[in-house]
Amino acid sequence: MSKIAIYPGSFDPVTNGHVDIIERALKIFDHIIIAVAKHPHKEPFFTLEERLEMLTDSLKKLKRVKVDSLDGLLINYVNKQKAHVIIRGVRAMTDFEYEFQMALMNRKLDDKIETVFLMPNEIYSYVSSSVIKEIASYGGNINGLVPDIVRNKINAKLNKNASSK
Amino acid sequence: MSKIAIYPGSFDPVTNGHVDIIERALKIFDHIIIAVAKHPHKEPFFTLEERLEMLTDSLKKLKRVKVDSLDGLLINYVNKQKAHVIIRGVRAMTDFEYEFQMALMNRKLDDKIETVFLMPNEIYSYVSSSVIKEIASYGGNINGLVPDIVRNKINAKLNKNASSK
Amino acid sequence: MSKIAIYPGSFDPVTNGHVDIIERALKIFDHIIIAVAKHPHKEPFFTLEERLEMLTDSLKKLKRVKVDSLDGLLINYVNKQKAHVIIRGVRAMTDFEYEFQMALMNRKLDDKIETVFLMPNEIYSYVSSSVIKEIASYGGNINGLVPDIVRNKINAKLNKNASSK
Amino acid sequence: MSKIAIYPGSFDPVTNGHVDIIERALKIFDHIIIAVAKHPHKEPFFTLEERLEMLTDSLKKLKRVKVDSLDGLLINYVNKQKAHVIIRGVRAMTDFEYEFQMALMNRKLDDKIETVFLMPNEIYSYVSSSVIKEIASYGGNINGLVPDIVRNKINAKLNKNASSK
Amino acid sequence: MSKIAIYPGSFDPVTNGHVDIIERALKIFDHIIIAVAKHPHKEPFFTLEERLEMLTDSLKKLKRVKVDSLDGLLINYVNKQKAHVIIRGVRAMTDFEYEFQMALMNRKLDDKIETVFLMPNEIYSYVSSSVIKEIASYGGNINGLVPDIVRNKINAKLNKNASSK
Amino acid sequence: MSKIAIYPGSFDPVTNGHVDIIERALKIFDHIIIAVAKHPHKEPFFTLEERLEMLTDSLKKLKRVKVDSLDGLLINYVNKQKAHVIIRGVRAMTDFEYEFQMALMNRKLDDKIETVFLMPNEIYSYVSSSVIKEIASYGGNINGLVPDIVRNKINAKLNKNASSK
Repeated sequence: MSKIAIYPGSFDPVTNGHVDIIERALKIFDHIIIAVAKHPHKEPFFTLEERLEMLTDSLKKLKRVKVDSLDGLLINYVNKQKAHVIIRGVRAMTDFEYEFQMALMNRKLDDKIETVFLMPNEIYSYVSSSVIKEIASYGGNINGLVPDIVRNKINAKLNKNASSK
Repeated sequence: MSKIAIYPGSFDPVTNGHVDIIERALKIFDHIIIAVAKHPHKEPFFTLEERLEMLTDSLKKLKRVKVDSLDGLLINYVNKQKAHVIIRGVRAMTDFEYEFQMALMNRKLDDKIETVFLMPNEIYSYVSSSVIKEIASYGGNINGLVPDIVRNKINAKLNKNASSK
Repeated sequence: MSKIAIYPGSFDPVTNGHVDIIERALKIFDHIIIAVAKHPHKEPFFTLEERLEMLTDSLKKLKRVKVDSLDGLLINYVNKQKAHVIIRGVRAMTDFEYEFQMALMNRKLDDKIETVFLMPNEIYSYVSSSVIKEIASYGGNINGLVPDIVRNKINAKLNKNASSK
Repeated sequence: MSKIAIYPGSFDPVTNGHVDIIERALKIFDHIIIAVAKHPHKEPFFTLEERLEMLTDSLKKLKRVKVDSLDGLLINYVNKQKAHVIIRGVRAMTDFEYEFQMALMNRKLDDKIETVFLMPNEIYSYVSSSVIKEIASYGGNINGLVPDIVRNKINAKLNKNASSK
Repeated sequence: MSKIAIYPGSFDPVTNGHVDIIERALKIFDHIIIAVAKHPHKEPFFTLEERLEMLTDSLKKLKRVKVDSLDGLLINYVNKQKAHVIIRGVRAMTDFEYEFQMALMNRKLDDKIETVFLMPNEIYSYVSSSVIKEIASYGGNINGLVPDIVRNKINAKLNKNASSK
Repeated sequence: MSKIAIYPGSFDPVTNGHVDIIERALKIFDHIIIAVAKHPHKEPFFTLEERLEMLTDSLKKLKRVKVDSLDGLLINYVNKQKAHVIIRGVRAMTDFEYEFQMALMNRKLDDKIETVFLMPNEIYSYVSSSVIKEIASYGGNINGLVPDIVRNKINAKLNKNASSK
């Protein structure tokens, strides 16, 4: 049977930690759909279009991966894609507790769908989208932590914000 | 001696996890006062009146329970009620650490008052007011997770918000 | 209604942290029974008789407290005592997770019985029976961390062990 | 491609929590091999033969599952089976931290092999092999927590131990 | 060699827990620079000037301590001061995980700089700037938890806010 | 002032994670004394002499480091060495909670002594003496995780044990 897994998130922006999880997941699943939340909890730094573009560019060498946007309930999206697996990367114990709650809730909403947890390489254990944006906003070097397109986009956006002030 | 315990919170809205804690506490204490924070940390989804109404309706079958609003310092409220016990439900380890800090601070403010921690049924370990609102906002099914009145109020409010856009 | 609570443990030996929990629990419950496990998981340092004696002496000023030994399933003991509350002290998050599992298992075995968690004074957050024994075995000063009778019994036992070598 | 996953453990004895993980994993993988550690860290309660027999009986209705014994390095076993996925069930945060370390170590030993973490049903969050043995040894009721064959074997073994004393 | 350590934070406001960490750090380092973040993550309650003034007053009896403001990347500031150590106080496990990530990221940005973690006195384990502000806003007593100047400034500010409404 | 720090442990055996902590500590302290516990909690795999020899060899390129054995209370040893700082490496949250308790106890025993926590490189986050011994006992490759002398000693010891069976 062909296995499809959904990797949901806000990807604001995608980091090398996300890419690492996707590459690991490709060893287990036949197809992976990256589902980018249209309306994340917090006001995003990048528009949905920018987030999709950066993901598409960062993953262009990977076959069997599709980038899509997600509006509405994750469980409904998973079913519409005829998938039954959700992928989540976990770096730390506090991450994990929140992820656990969401996974139990998703199982309550639809018990045919499973969440699997994968670990990124330990060198990404301190890399999150929000830390990346903070470091970059102070002019810190984010080489090696995000795909090249992300580094360029963040710096362009930060310069534009600075010059428009 | 007659034992009164205070169960404080924002109850925005009350969930079946809260009701479960109250039913357990009634096995231990003679009277329980639900103290609904007038001004929670975050802007509430429901007004104080709505939150009080939903609690009153959800708990109407339980004797020995009173619903009240709380303005000001919890410790002062507990004393005014001639109670000396605060009840807190804990579902998870990260919950617990925050609860621990608040309980130690309350003890510092008044060392005659004790905080007791109770566990909800494990089937509510993933149920929190904020998850409930998120699921409902995407049209997810919250049957069995909140009292009926809450489900109706959330859906009415969400529809009104949607149609007013 | 008269409230009885059971405080189970190995108390090998009782510490001032245990005494602190018992004093707090007396503000909430009418009667407390200290249930000393006859056969703890690990080979005890003190015999059951010694552990009972030290507890009885340490708690002699507290009314409404009884010291007893526990053999067999805790839930059966609680029922036999016509109690329906178990008390557990929690000092730290890792404690808490284990306590959570045991409390859920006890609830599964008998859902009329509740476990309540209490916090000791923060000055006892680093005091456990095993740390006390370790410190004493190296000649460290345990004044203020255990009742006087415990300090004397530990030192007597350690000296006897040393001289018999 | 056909996906094989290895589920290693000591299974001393298998619980319904383990069976739940296996059933969930079967929704994701084509074949699952249960690898029973010949020499667990602690002296086992059941012999390897007993543990294998209980697993085989408990899983007899599940197709695509094989029960085997494991001697030596897990990573070597995974490779010998031409698998590249290790399954671990995680119930709690403290579990998780240990599992994380082992998974990183296994990845260091062979970076082609991934560990995936699955969550059991929350009703098994308090069920572990050691708790089961403890409850049973005091005559507690373990119905619904372990497969029937395990309940019978534990009770037989405990009665035999008791009568031989 | 003369050892300089940087203690960064928002200090909104400084608490006795912060002062305790600084006094402990003075036993280890020759000079300590308190680096007050100009632009903390959240809108501060006190202006930068107020935060600097309260720190300077609270630490006036301590020699070898300097109070400064921090704008931009912490690592750049540390280098400019010819320091190579960052001090962080940790009170609780959830604190610690966030601190760990930041320390790893700072090491990635400059691996000559080390972060050392110190523990405050356990009586400050529940004292944080945000809890202090919350307690004070409800008229709670914060004596002994913050330096005198902080208590006066908070109350003055809260009264002014109240009278201007 | 010249700063001496004590790094205590059982070092059974020393790993590259320990060496990494020592190298980091040398950036902060003038002298470091490695204090090897004569009688660790568990029966050691290597004798005290072997543990001292492996440490001495592994650290021979580092100046300002001394290897010594520790018998009795750590606090007494620290005072005898005229030091006032204890170094502990922390890799994970559960480590940290235990370390916290020990540090508070040591502070209670002598409040002039501080414990500082350092983080190893994240690539050692899964490396502990016990995992190393387990991997090696199954013939796993521990290159890069321990100093060369440790790898040779472990393998020699394991072969000797195997051939003597």
